[in-house]
Amino acid sequence: MTPTIGVFDSGFGGLTVLRALLARIPQARFAFLGDTARLPYGSKSRRTIARYAAESAQFLVREQAAEFLVIACNTASALALDAIQDAVSVPVLGVIHPGAAAARAASHTGDVLVIATDATVHSHAYAAACQELGLRALEKACPLLVPLVEEGWTEPGTHKGAITAQVIETYLAELLSESARTGLKPDTLVLGCTHYPLLRPLMEAAVPAEMRVIDSAESAAEAASRLFSAVETGQAAGPAEIACFATDSTEKFERLGSRFLGRPTGTIQLVDLGG
Amino acid sequence: MTPTIGVFDSGFGGLTVLRALLARIPQARFAFLGDTARLPYGSKSRRTIARYAAESAQFLVREQAAEFLVIACNTASALALDAIQDAVSVPVLGVIHPGAAAARAASHTGDVLVIATDATVHSHAYAAACQELGLRALEKACPLLVPLVEEGWTEPGTHKGAITAQVIETYLAELLSESARTGLKPDTLVLGCTHYPLLRPLMEAAVPAEMRVIDSAESAAEAASRLFSAVETGQAAGPAEIACFATDSTEKFERLGSRFLGRPTGTIQLVDLGG
Repeated sequence: MTPTIGVFDSGFGGLTVLRALLARIPQARFAFLGDTARLPYGSKSRRTIARYAAESAQFLVREQAAEFLVIACNTASALALDAIQDAVSVPVLGVIHPGAAAARAASHTGDVLVIATDATVHSHAYAAACQELGLRALEKACPLLVPLVEEGWTEPGTHKGAITAQVIETYLAELLSESARTGLKPDTLVLGCTHYPLLRPLMEAAVPAEMRVIDSAESAAEAASRLFSAVETGQAAGPAEIACFATDSTEKFERLGSRFLGRPTGTIQLVDLGG
Repeated sequence: MTPTIGVFDSGFGGLTVLRALLARIPQARFAFLGDTARLPYGSKSRRTIARYAAESAQFLVREQAAEFLVIACNTASALALDAIQDAVSVPVLGVIHPGAAAARAASHTGDVLVIATDATVHSHAYAAACQELGLRALEKACPLLVPLVEEGWTEPGTHKGAITAQVIETYLAELLSESARTGLKPDTLVLGCTHYPLLRPLMEAAVPAEMRVIDSAESAAEAASRLFSAVETGQAAGPAEIACFATDSTEKFERLGSRFLGRPTGTIQLVDLGG
């Protein structure tokens, strides 16, 4: 029987994590839930986020028989991983620790930069995960990047891509100047938001030549694939099966989802998790 | 006894409407509610928005004794004005019709442009309100403008303001090119979002020389003041009293609110409207 991996996000950005998972665990069935009725988690309190995330995790385990959960949402990973682990009895993997571990493997200086949403930065979850691994991390919130990705202003060499490049350069200049002030010598940049993989070409062009760019979506998928192969026989059974669910209007999900997933999402099924 | 005017928004952007109301109705007490736990309304379905808006309106009328409601939220005005009017027994004014009426008064050609959020544009509420008044309206969603305002990248003559100016010029060029294709001769631009008044200097610089810029926050406050003076004795009683409420974390509200309101918001009181 094909095992089901549940993938959860507050919206559809986590489809970049699902995309990375598909490339590494093609033998699984995937159930993806975007809690679009209640996004963005980023502007909400920890208590509210924990309740929403626990309800969403329970849907994937109880209704979709997920045997393994990947929390493809930096905010929920930062603020609600404990609450999710308490709410379900299957293994749960977030995106923060794999991102920090990849930065540890990449960095020579031991100093890293992290860019993310406001909520992720305010949680300081990346800084804490980096510190556990002996890294010093400086975090910066970049609230304009998610809407720029959702507008599709991501193509290098276009007028709109050039505006996004200026926004990225402005944020990076502030971050590098702050890191110089605090005596850090960063050689690694962690993309701590599931929307940012779509900005990777613009990011690579904007960072100093010697700086490595770590994508936490890729890092989480790698960690999941290692954990998964330890419990699974690994018999490939053709193309992976995907079922996508959302808690409210699926229009934006369907319109933008395929760009994040790198292939069509199929029909998005609407589910009601209450208030 | 000082009458209370309830002002409602999904977030704190409606503080620009409250600011315009304060300038025109200084003798009132104002109760402002930002439903920050459930924002943004823009990505939600009409049914969900109607329920949230009705609950918020009931809070202002039942708990705050509001005798008059101003819906300072374009999305709620577009999608839920009927539901709000059904939910409470006091007069309710939205921002869409006053904006359209001001455009009617300003336009000589009878053709107007409207910029707003995705949800407001998809509702076509401005186009419908304009058409009722004999205007032809072309609407465009500008999803990057709200986050640019919230980041504070609004100052003309600064590096960040110049990036925002490029974003505005890009949106306007697309809108003007679309309006030329459809044979419109627009001479008026309606700012159909409560965040946009903070972009007014950049907007004025970006539009063609002969184009009038209409701010729906100002238009709504003018309409409210006319309605209010018809029922009120109008005795000025010193500086207006303001009470601000939010349904979740008040940090962003307190941090950004004074820029929208043009004066300190005071302490934001947390209220629970349920899920």
